[in-house]
Amino acid sequence: MAGNVIGTLFRFTSFGESHGSHIGGVVDGCPSNMVLDMDKIADDLSRRRPKARFSTSRVEEDRLHFLSGLYEGKTLGTPIAFIIENASQHSADYEWLRDCYRPSHADYTYQMKYGVRDHRGGGRASARETAARVVAGSIAKQIIEPYGMTVEAYTSQIGDIVLANHYTSLDLSKRDANELYCPDADVAGRMMNLLGEVQKDGDTVGGVVTCVIKGCPIGLGEPVFDRLQAALAAAMMSIPSAKGFDYGFGFGMAAMRGSRCLDVLDADFSFRSNHSGGIQGGIANGEDIFFRVAFKPIASLAMEVPLTAVDGTMMTKKIGGRHDVCQVPRAVPVVEAMAAMVLADMLLMAR
Amino acid sequence: MAGNVIGTLFRFTSFGESHGSHIGGVVDGCPSNMVLDMDKIADDLSRRRPKARFSTSRVEEDRLHFLSGLYEGKTLGTPIAFIIENASQHSADYEWLRDCYRPSHADYTYQMKYGVRDHRGGGRASARETAARVVAGSIAKQIIEPYGMTVEAYTSQIGDIVLANHYTSLDLSKRDANELYCPDADVAGRMMNLLGEVQKDGDTVGGVVTCVIKGCPIGLGEPVFDRLQAALAAAMMSIPSAKGFDYGFGFGMAAMRGSRCLDVLDADFSFRSNHSGGIQGGIANGEDIFFRVAFKPIASLAMEVPLTAVDGTMMTKKIGGRHDVCQVPRAVPVVEAMAAMVLADMLLMAR
Amino acid sequence: MAGNVIGTLFRFTSFGESHGSHIGGVVDGCPSNMVLDMDKIADDLSRRRPKARFSTSRVEEDRLHFLSGLYEGKTLGTPIAFIIENASQHSADYEWLRDCYRPSHADYTYQMKYGVRDHRGGGRASARETAARVVAGSIAKQIIEPYGMTVEAYTSQIGDIVLANHYTSLDLSKRDANELYCPDADVAGRMMNLLGEVQKDGDTVGGVVTCVIKGCPIGLGEPVFDRLQAALAAAMMSIPSAKGFDYGFGFGMAAMRGSRCLDVLDADFSFRSNHSGGIQGGIANGEDIFFRVAFKPIASLAMEVPLTAVDGTMMTKKIGGRHDVCQVPRAVPVVEAMAAMVLADMLLMAR
Amino acid sequence: MAGNVIGTLFRFTSFGESHGSHIGGVVDGCPSNMVLDMDKIADDLSRRRPKARFSTSRVEEDRLHFLSGLYEGKTLGTPIAFIIENASQHSADYEWLRDCYRPSHADYTYQMKYGVRDHRGGGRASARETAARVVAGSIAKQIIEPYGMTVEAYTSQIGDIVLANHYTSLDLSKRDANELYCPDADVAGRMMNLLGEVQKDGDTVGGVVTCVIKGCPIGLGEPVFDRLQAALAAAMMSIPSAKGFDYGFGFGMAAMRGSRCLDVLDADFSFRSNHSGGIQGGIANGEDIFFRVAFKPIASLAMEVPLTAVDGTMMTKKIGGRHDVCQVPRAVPVVEAMAAMVLADMLLMAR
Repeated sequence: MAGNVIGTLFRFTSFGESHGSHIGGVVDGCPSNMVLDMDKIADDLSRRRPKARFSTSRVEEDRLHFLSGLYEGKTLGTPIAFIIENASQHSADYEWLRDCYRPSHADYTYQMKYGVRDHRGGGRASARETAARVVAGSIAKQIIEPYGMTVEAYTSQIGDIVLANHYTSLDLSKRDANELYCPDADVAGRMMNLLGEVQKDGDTVGGVVTCVIKGCPIGLGEPVFDRLQAALAAAMMSIPSAKGFDYGFGFGMAAMRGSRCLDVLDADFSFRSNHSGGIQGGIANGEDIFFRVAFKPIASLAMEVPLTAVDGTMMTKKIGGRHDVCQVPRAVPVVEAMAAMVLADMLLMAR
Repeated sequence: MAGNVIGTLFRFTSFGESHGSHIGGVVDGCPSNMVLDMDKIADDLSRRRPKARFSTSRVEEDRLHFLSGLYEGKTLGTPIAFIIENASQHSADYEWLRDCYRPSHADYTYQMKYGVRDHRGGGRASARETAARVVAGSIAKQIIEPYGMTVEAYTSQIGDIVLANHYTSLDLSKRDANELYCPDADVAGRMMNLLGEVQKDGDTVGGVVTCVIKGCPIGLGEPVFDRLQAALAAAMMSIPSAKGFDYGFGFGMAAMRGSRCLDVLDADFSFRSNHSGGIQGGIANGEDIFFRVAFKPIASLAMEVPLTAVDGTMMTKKIGGRHDVCQVPRAVPVVEAMAAMVLADMLLMAR
Repeated sequence: MAGNVIGTLFRFTSFGESHGSHIGGVVDGCPSNMVLDMDKIADDLSRRRPKARFSTSRVEEDRLHFLSGLYEGKTLGTPIAFIIENASQHSADYEWLRDCYRPSHADYTYQMKYGVRDHRGGGRASARETAARVVAGSIAKQIIEPYGMTVEAYTSQIGDIVLANHYTSLDLSKRDANELYCPDADVAGRMMNLLGEVQKDGDTVGGVVTCVIKGCPIGLGEPVFDRLQAALAAAMMSIPSAKGFDYGFGFGMAAMRGSRCLDVLDADFSFRSNHSGGIQGGIANGEDIFFRVAFKPIASLAMEVPLTAVDGTMMTKKIGGRHDVCQVPRAVPVVEAMAAMVLADMLLMAR
Repeated sequence: MAGNVIGTLFRFTSFGESHGSHIGGVVDGCPSNMVLDMDKIADDLSRRRPKARFSTSRVEEDRLHFLSGLYEGKTLGTPIAFIIENASQHSADYEWLRDCYRPSHADYTYQMKYGVRDHRGGGRASARETAARVVAGSIAKQIIEPYGMTVEAYTSQIGDIVLANHYTSLDLSKRDANELYCPDADVAGRMMNLLGEVQKDGDTVGGVVTCVIKGCPIGLGEPVFDRLQAALAAAMMSIPSAKGFDYGFGFGMAAMRGSRCLDVLDADFSFRSNHSGGIQGGIANGEDIFFRVAFKPIASLAMEVPLTAVDGTMMTKKIGGRHDVCQVPRAVPVVEAMAAMVLADMLLMAR
């Protein structure tokens, strides 16, 4: 329970600091005899990679190596270990951070908890580790897809620009047409404009990712403490900078009356509506599962900010390094990866 | 992983159907040599109990018996098992449900998953099981309180009546002055009026519980997958009818700029602000932890609703039984219980 | 990890002190829609119950009550909680133990670990808790039997009287013909004589239980750390007084040459021999699984023994109470129960 | 629960096939701020490495690389990932195995369980993976040593040559004077002679490793299912080829009378004897913990053996490859590693 292992039957162990030699992970519990599609893994990694305009200039080539668990292209049922080189770290840029706590970062909490930390680029607390999640999640997707499940996430809010339409009225396939992974071109355009302004100000901005799971078999999930929504919430809230999670009509249901959001099961055993978001009593009911994850703005600004030295001295500094204006588009494949891991775990338990 | 066990070192196993002979639980991992304050447990249970006006008329006396783990008033360090009798079930009221799925209930998903269910009063899916959580949570509170931690929740929204003030501007001790556990008398009054209308309409309404954890030791929590917020989110989303969770400035941070929500560590190592909600990198930073849990309206209405027989026949029926107009005030001690269990578990791991 | 929960998908939580009001347990993960055969559970409990001649005179009626998880005779897939009353405790007999540590008991280690203990009858450390294991194990047997698996244990050694024949040359059905559960009448007779002598001396004696699992599906088990033999060993070594475990030709294989114990897979994919004991690489190979569990003699003697007061004063006392001359026959159903729980858990994982 | 993760707070994930590019592991839960002594790790690895005379001729250089969790020589409290290259695999030697099951190997069970296997050198079932255990165990030793705990194992039997003396009458420091890790030079000499004969015959032979844990704090361990001996038994029985485990006077106690093996606590709270092997009720009592692990002879013989083709055809073949005559001396550091991991996990839970 030191925090770096997730899952019961599909179990993923993550490791690595931002500026160590490698990050990586081990997937234990992947079914055997699967032909892993390496292109899909590369695609998912590529979607997480920094995009030119509003992202860190760190070149994350993400050279991925598999060390075990595969033989002649097939999974063996044994642990799949993989590593990704941390190229292009520019660790020297962070030397001044050794004795300094940045605002709204984990520098201080890690130092207090562990009495030591790798200050370079955030160390273990860096979102760099999410690259390993994407690899594991991409494997998980390949487990659940043959059961008819798909996981698709998209950017539904950046700052105050909100894609208000319900996902059912969107063409999600248009998501990849822009680098923000927002399926509405017009909204995406306005988001781009906002990001331009924010970047000019040396600032950052938050946002929301919406995720849709289709084809989830009726009965997936567990009651009481391991409700499907509880597992999804934990997985999402484990993503760096995530501040909120809701599913179905979510926070909006707090203001609703019961008579307005009953999901009636029809004579053909489909549901007339889906306010519930595809889960009842913690268990999938066969409808789409959809949820939102809110992200705070990144705390690494391209402007002068107050800093606290380990001896309590206050100072002001413009933090260098290479940072995103908004990480939300890059969180899209991470949200998908975490959802896929939860579903793969639940599927293996339910089989 | 069948869903009825939560926690690693503080491990709670819950059992019982709504209309079985008993519900109850087993707490494994409670430290030894503690004098359990039974009055506090009774108080917490009493807060969860139905209140006259807007609640089920089921008399839940909650006669609690401890079966093990205590000797001469002290905890032995061995499992603490307890049971609560299910008195006053009126199971016959539910006979018609045997062959029928109610809208937005777990009837259908349980039947699909298990091929069998106890249809009486919702069986295992009934919120009746949360009484056992309250007992375990009350024990957990007694573990964390000597470390200076307190957990206080309150009703912050019912329907469209929102207690908008930040908790820091409220006197939480006023919470118990009304049966809604809302610390603002005026807002509570408006909530009461709303509930009266809703009840008159035979309808139900949702709401939000806000929870504040004070005194959490710096360093509590784990990084990456077991972030404190991930554990809290899972615990909250495991509560029946919970639809959303956020912490700190939560969903509101999606619209913020980074420069507006930096939490700067001051020269005296306190924070100047607390947009983060007391957690950074998954680890407590010493500030208050606060979060919200959104609840949907209860699906058991006192009006005619469409029902689906197991053979697909549709019908309309006014569901009898005894139900709350709004369960949110009764969820307040459940939210506290779940938070206390998460904290006790993290505390035992960190010690 | 406070020690009272075992299993992953078939998860059993045990509770209760010897002289508390009840012992009991919760089985989480039992498949739904099974008709539990209560007579089989009663039979298993009855085999564990003290027998007239060489056993404690404590009347353990084992009145068993199920509190949840069953409806109209069928398992619901929800937690099955049960309790057994601790009747006839005679707790006053143990009052002198409050300030005293008996030799080779857990009195001292419990006191040191917990700073408190229920001294009456050994408290949680009493073998009384194994009654709850037998109930859970009996449920587990009913899970695995439809898959063709059977678990049969018998007494194969008491003191220096050894039933040397390999189980394949025994008629295990004769086991129940004597109260020692030894399938060879002649050997059982000699064991009885030995027990008579030992009892006359006010002494106790150890022994060995052998267990045979038939019908284990090929492929059950997991590699590396969760090898089937590792899970079985842990389960067996968790039984009070167990001192050793081996499987297949066990300790005897240490002295063997490899050429003498090769298990060759024949053209029809059965094995020509079974030195391995039905497991290779941690995974069942379809042959019988057999293992031994060694038990030390009970430390509660009917003679004067040295005792240590909590202040260090030494004294000598004839411990009263009601104790077995040899617990090994009563351990037979406990060994079966633990094996069945391991197999049920592995089966649910493998499905 | 796919078998490749062990431990709760000290959690080790192992990966790698014998002839894949690397084996390795991830240690999650190692306390922070420890200076890892790399020489000790190298020493432990070196003890596991094949010795000239009676071992495989595979040159296992065990080039060890740490990928994460360390910074400037100190542990960060984050996952410690490491890899060991699989140099010198000679995989072509095993090509004939692709369609063939060797007797008493895991070839058949892996094929049946997974439907695919890496046949080269035993794949995941090869004892090659124990090198990763030794690294993790060596880290675990460095966690427990500051608490005064030491773990020392030695070869106590090879074939019928038994080192009969109790460990208390041996000078364990003499263990390293011979390549069999047997602390009695005379017995070691006779073991060497036996190995010479066995080798000449192209055969293999089994043996026993005895392990002694000193300085275990009173109170370490958990009751009921997580008894210290249960955790040790599981850890030991997870080692390839292990067939038996006992502790204290072990199987010998089955033949004893209770009056002969009482461990009396003396007025100074030390024990007069230690038949119990340092554990009572699953919890350490402050005395030495000692146990034995029995190993079967390796099944890879340097002689003609019957083999079974996947289509059922029988054949006879002299298996090539490079194999030990007796793996028992090489198991000595593996036994220590597994014991150290169990103790580190229990220690972190007890803190």
